[in-house]
Amino acid sequence: MKWEEIDQQACSVARALSVLGERWTLLIIRDAFRGTRRFDEFQRSLGVTRHRLSERLRKLVDQGVLTRVAYMDRPVRYEYRLTRKGLALYPVLMTLSQWGDDWMDDGNGPPQTYRHSLCGHTTRSILSCEHCGDPVRPEEVSAQMGTVLSAYTAHLKAQGDDVPSAGELAREAALYWQQTARQDHE
Amino acid sequence: MKWEEIDQQACSVARALSVLGERWTLLIIRDAFRGTRRFDEFQRSLGVTRHRLSERLRKLVDQGVLTRVAYMDRPVRYEYRLTRKGLALYPVLMTLSQWGDDWMDDGNGPPQTYRHSLCGHTTRSILSCEHCGDPVRPEEVSAQMGTVLSAYTAHLKAQGDDVPSAGELAREAALYWQQTARQDHE
Repeated sequence: MKWEEIDQQACSVARALSVLGERWTLLIIRDAFRGTRRFDEFQRSLGVTRHRLSERLRKLVDQGVLTRVAYMDRPVRYEYRLTRKGLALYPVLMTLSQWGDDWMDDGNGPPQTYRHSLCGHTTRSILSCEHCGDPVRPEEVSAQMGTVLSAYTAHLKAQGDDVPSAGELAREAALYWQQTARQDHE
Repeated sequence: MKWEEIDQQACSVARALSVLGERWTLLIIRDAFRGTRRFDEFQRSLGVTRHRLSERLRKLVDQGVLTRVAYMDRPVRYEYRLTRKGLALYPVLMTLSQWGDDWMDDGNGPPQTYRHSLCGHTTRSILSCEHCGDPVRPEEVSAQMGTVLSAYTAHLKAQGDDVPSAGELAREAALYWQQTARQDHE
């Protein structure tokens, strides 16, 4: 499989990474959350080549994570702002930041701390269950297959075939779904 | 700046991405959370080249995210398991997965749903404040500079210089800290 095809999977992690999983992209998003908007500012902040930066920004605009807004008429100049889809990446950045704080510390404490204005405390953010509010731990969470994965595993079992693991299953299921869905329309 | 230098910043997001921010890496971690352990299994699951996979696994072992454990003596064969540092990436994967569910849906519902065994409900996980338990929203969180960033901005202000934004500040602050810390030891 080529990297460019990783969105062709019944897997939300793979689909998310098809937009975010390349060098520089999540650093661009980080900067956008810190108020960076203009091409030259991103370039200065990241020190990435202009070519690479253009390419990454274009993809983020194409995918609806950033929007390009004219801030000057003559000559026309654009800036980049987070869309709702982009703002929804906040939890991804916060969990990355916290992992960095916890495991990639250089011995000088966290580069930044975070204050929650609602309660007034310097705080950490934790992943919790929307239903009961308790912290979510991997050993207390089980995954259930949705429509596409269920349909494919049922098909495999009916044929007496083994169910493959992780990425293979996610790829094959998406393909199977496309084919059967297409057949249903013919 | 080269990508290889992005860990040289007083920024936990950049440091985290210096380990995780390349193609395939977070998909390898996803597979590891789903029980994949052996080289050939990762290869089959991801469809990535063996060369690229070796390189990524080696980096994850070097960085202490995976550990290499012999599971066979003659010939010696290794498998890869998540360390505590690797298991601590669970919130990163869950927030990525949820963003994929919310924004990269193909119209067939989420590929997987998650059941929280503590409360018995199919649930979403949300980011909440460790102190008060309320959901954390970007507009209600303010960042405070830690030791390294504070020292550098104080230095800039004392000189009457402007404070640069985001990545530039994070890079310069780390450099300044190294240099002053080195001076203190001389």
